[in-house]
Amino acid sequence: MEEKRFRPEYLLDFTTEIFMHIGCSRADADAVARVLIAAELRDHSSHGMIRVKEYYEMWKAGRVNTVPVVKVVHETPSTAVVDGDRGFGMVTGMASMKLAIEKAAVTGTGWVAARNSNHFGIAGYYAMMALEHDMVGICVTNANPLVAPTWSVSRYLGTNPLAVAVPALNEPPFVADFASTPIARGKLAVAEKKGEKVPFGFVQDGDGMPSDDPSVLRRGGSMLTLGGDREHGSHKGYCLTAVVDIFSSLFSGANFGPFVPPSVAYLPVLDKKVGEGTGHFFGAMRIDAFRPAEEFKASMDEWIHTFRNAEPSKGQSRVLIPGDPEREAEEKYKREGLKLVPAVVEDLKIIAGETGIEFIF
Amino acid sequence: MEEKRFRPEYLLDFTTEIFMHIGCSRADADAVARVLIAAELRDHSSHGMIRVKEYYEMWKAGRVNTVPVVKVVHETPSTAVVDGDRGFGMVTGMASMKLAIEKAAVTGTGWVAARNSNHFGIAGYYAMMALEHDMVGICVTNANPLVAPTWSVSRYLGTNPLAVAVPALNEPPFVADFASTPIARGKLAVAEKKGEKVPFGFVQDGDGMPSDDPSVLRRGGSMLTLGGDREHGSHKGYCLTAVVDIFSSLFSGANFGPFVPPSVAYLPVLDKKVGEGTGHFFGAMRIDAFRPAEEFKASMDEWIHTFRNAEPSKGQSRVLIPGDPEREAEEKYKREGLKLVPAVVEDLKIIAGETGIEFIF
Repeated sequence: MEEKRFRPEYLLDFTTEIFMHIGCSRADADAVARVLIAAELRDHSSHGMIRVKEYYEMWKAGRVNTVPVVKVVHETPSTAVVDGDRGFGMVTGMASMKLAIEKAAVTGTGWVAARNSNHFGIAGYYAMMALEHDMVGICVTNANPLVAPTWSVSRYLGTNPLAVAVPALNEPPFVADFASTPIARGKLAVAEKKGEKVPFGFVQDGDGMPSDDPSVLRRGGSMLTLGGDREHGSHKGYCLTAVVDIFSSLFSGANFGPFVPPSVAYLPVLDKKVGEGTGHFFGAMRIDAFRPAEEFKASMDEWIHTFRNAEPSKGQSRVLIPGDPEREAEEKYKREGLKLVPAVVEDLKIIAGETGIEFIF
Repeated sequence: MEEKRFRPEYLLDFTTEIFMHIGCSRADADAVARVLIAAELRDHSSHGMIRVKEYYEMWKAGRVNTVPVVKVVHETPSTAVVDGDRGFGMVTGMASMKLAIEKAAVTGTGWVAARNSNHFGIAGYYAMMALEHDMVGICVTNANPLVAPTWSVSRYLGTNPLAVAVPALNEPPFVADFASTPIARGKLAVAEKKGEKVPFGFVQDGDGMPSDDPSVLRRGGSMLTLGGDREHGSHKGYCLTAVVDIFSSLFSGANFGPFVPPSVAYLPVLDKKVGEGTGHFFGAMRIDAFRPAEEFKASMDEWIHTFRNAEPSKGQSRVLIPGDPEREAEEKYKREGLKLVPAVVEDLKIIAGETGIEFIF
């Protein structure tokens, strides 16, 4: 049997309807759906349609406000703090990044810290919003604590991603969008389900000893920062993850580190809070605030050519520019349609049934 | 025989005199000396007094301008581009960071890109300049190409460091200052001299195959990005190193990647250039541009307490906050004096002889 493929536009409409059904305005529902579909298209399906059910459950549990009033609570010419009013992260995220872009248009750069938000999908989406304005876009967020600082067994940090998008002239943009851990939580879960071991350097057991068993995460174990162990630079990965956490929480007054609220309803609300909700941080930098835009972009083309023409290692056919794999996936899925894993399709069927929204699968 | 220790103030005066002797103004010579001594105090001796000879040789070779006129060539309310006029990196660096701080005081944040500069010592020095102004400081620089992108054998990137300094209230500040490779070049050189192997994940051979032999760097090999290999996230390390390179060069029009000029006179000037000299990037963010400063700093204290009280792994006694080891080293060396390795003392004796400056060793 041929596997079902979905047109991205179809999934966008369907998902928008679901979020409108639970109370979101059309614009807000569209924001949520758009970022989820973008994740699917860019082959980050861990941040894609699988989240529809999680968000839906968070709404059912009363842990997301579907009619938020996103407010600017403090600002200067180049900065602002946005309160997301417990809404979906995409609503906070888009409003915040738009504001960063507006501020950059006036003062050269714009920096917006957000609090009282929720899971916002792929950080790269917001960073890329800057590109059409000839700006460099930056976005970071903290996330559920799963990761231990170097020399510790405490799950005090998230897989805290960072994204940086840089416009080029004739080349496609440079888009780095990566978690600050060697591997995503989702991939460890898959390995565990299959009963497979993982390479050393991804997780440690409850004593902080090296482990190749992903199931240690359910027995007091923790994920490791980029670098894996101290000898291989895990303390640098810890620095990076910590910086992302601080930017995501301290500037806005959101929860940091171990106090970041869960993004799924099956994990309990934490007893202690040190701020408001989940936090993000957004930046936009007008390239012509530094150099003429054409000159910057032509130079970026040269950067990209240089690195794309680097000599591949033996057995490799080419050297990638950050953003290449995602862009190629996007082109392919737009042409061929998106595949969803059966479990996600089943979840969507259930939600379709509960909401009375038609789902053609 | 007891090992000689130097008072930091003595080395500062001596080093300042050397740089004045080769033409620097007192202020510029003081800037160079101050950043080198700070590196020694913070136990980053690879960026400390060992550089005096290298800088001196660069001057002899006519590759550094000791009487630079550092100029702002472009600016907006929150940004500027500085041309270092081929001077020592510390001169460009201090002027640029001061300007970033001034801009932040007015518009909330300040971002300064520098070109036509040289090696500037430890990035952390500039980031920390922001702290006394209740600002977060950021500094990155690119460096001599030694590092290969993931899946490549081309030495196209430097060990590109990044530094972020965040003020706290009663706690000492958070200061992350780290190269974006698992290990420093200097440590590989030491292992090679001793004929020792290194762990896999630091270097690869000329075919891009894993190696534990640091001498491969002299036979077409290259250093690896943080993560080590693709499986362990080297592509994320590549993203990070690339972002630092782009920020250091593209905003100002300095050389990027493989075209970053050598910081030592024994390596030839490159045939091709794609910009002006070495580049850096500096940022200052007023914390009260986001939240009341006391509130931000009290929250940062809580962040630091939380992470310092994380549970240590078995066999470890404590969990560190970025900046702890350097601060403790600084306290110790200020009390006990600085040790210099014999080869560095010998170099300083030679320079003292050539310049006629007294050196008491």
